[in-house]
Amino acid sequence: MPRFFVEPGVLNDKFITLTGANAEHARVLRLAVGEKVTLCTGDGIDYLCTVSDLTRDRCSLVLQQSTPSASEAALHASLYVALPKSDKMEHIVQKATELGAAEIVAFPSARCVSRPDKASLDKKCERWQKIAVSAAEQSGRGRIPTVRTATFDEVLREAGAADLGVLLYENERAYSLREAIESHALHTAALITGPEGGFAPEEIAAAQQANVNICTLGPRILRCETAPLCALSALMYAAGELG
Amino acid sequence: MPRFFVEPGVLNDKFITLTGANAEHARVLRLAVGEKVTLCTGDGIDYLCTVSDLTRDRCSLVLQQSTPSASEAALHASLYVALPKSDKMEHIVQKATELGAAEIVAFPSARCVSRPDKASLDKKCERWQKIAVSAAEQSGRGRIPTVRTATFDEVLREAGAADLGVLLYENERAYSLREAIESHALHTAALITGPEGGFAPEEIAAAQQANVNICTLGPRILRCETAPLCALSALMYAAGELG
Repeated sequence: MPRFFVEPGVLNDKFITLTGANAEHARVLRLAVGEKVTLCTGDGIDYLCTVSDLTRDRCSLVLQQSTPSASEAALHASLYVALPKSDKMEHIVQKATELGAAEIVAFPSARCVSRPDKASLDKKCERWQKIAVSAAEQSGRGRIPTVRTATFDEVLREAGAADLGVLLYENERAYSLREAIESHALHTAALITGPEGGFAPEEIAAAQQANVNICTLGPRILRCETAPLCALSALMYAAGELG
Repeated sequence: MPRFFVEPGVLNDKFITLTGANAEHARVLRLAVGEKVTLCTGDGIDYLCTVSDLTRDRCSLVLQQSTPSASEAALHASLYVALPKSDKMEHIVQKATELGAAEIVAFPSARCVSRPDKASLDKKCERWQKIAVSAAEQSGRGRIPTVRTATFDEVLREAGAADLGVLLYENERAYSLREAIESHALHTAALITGPEGGFAPEEIAAAQQANVNICTLGPRILRCETAPLCALSALMYAAGELG
């Protein structure tokens, strides 16, 4: 069933009108009167509606029923990704949204090749948030993950405060993600992955200081866009969130 | 350490010369005399060599030592992917190689949008194999995954013969990948994922007949390029192959 994310205020009435991008999306989907769609406000509730009228730039709906969204993970997983090159972050945001991440946070690190200025980063972040909205709609999520930026210090502070805070490091040989997952509670989890050039030794030391677990993802070296999605898949699997 | 895949015959002598694409790669990496590199023939052995000479189109090496590759998974995982649209298969082959797949098999299914003719598919397959070689080198693998094509019947026969044969189906609600993984041996595993339009009901029925487990990957709908990599990550995690 098609899903549309709307502002919470839209649902104050039983009769709802989609406009703008949502109305355009409805047109692209060739919705017909009588069809059912789901509205989400990001509050974790699915609002089941029926299409009552369609014009070129408006789609009118009648609210039928509201139920808790069954597709939201109980685990609150935050994915912290060192800014990668080119459009890799778009790819990561899309896939991490499908995989059920609660938030996706980009941060600059010592060896990042990508070093956008603030204005450019803000613009990118806006674009990533739009990708998250679209991926949340397509994958049937009840919440839109927050996409934001942070400093490495903020990342470590937040990850250190989670039930499970993990930094994936290609030079770690002994302590595995699995050992970390199996020895921590999993209500809130934070996964941190590095840029193309990896983390600098002083960043690893700072993460240890901040009570973040330094873990390996195994003997194969994963690309900077593969590691976060592999780790998130493994975490979701371990938390029983993959069905 | 840089890795190069070479034909087995190259290693008949203690003194080895890289030519062609490998020599070009050595030049791109700006290797210097005295540097160490690893040669692989795909037999699961790492051949440690030292650069002894470099010219524009040749790189001479001296074999120092050979050790079993530590980066090959004990689990033989085959990934069967219904032909996706555009260049998604390239992405899947690259990531699945990093994640340790033993082989990656593309197959046509009822609802595949992509329907290349045999010549075009053979050409694509050649290209995918090259991507696998390059990803195996970069991720430090000791074997190059085989990339090939098969019919859906062949896929089901092969998957039915594996210790664990799983088809991921978005309309399955009850039986999870995790339940399937936890109730089977994991020496050989086969994961089958569908195209953009999903599997047809008769394909699911055929898979059940063939003794393949029909599993859900959870309540969120994954894109056809996300599902195989998520499932492979989860499988590798469960098999203790992520460190």
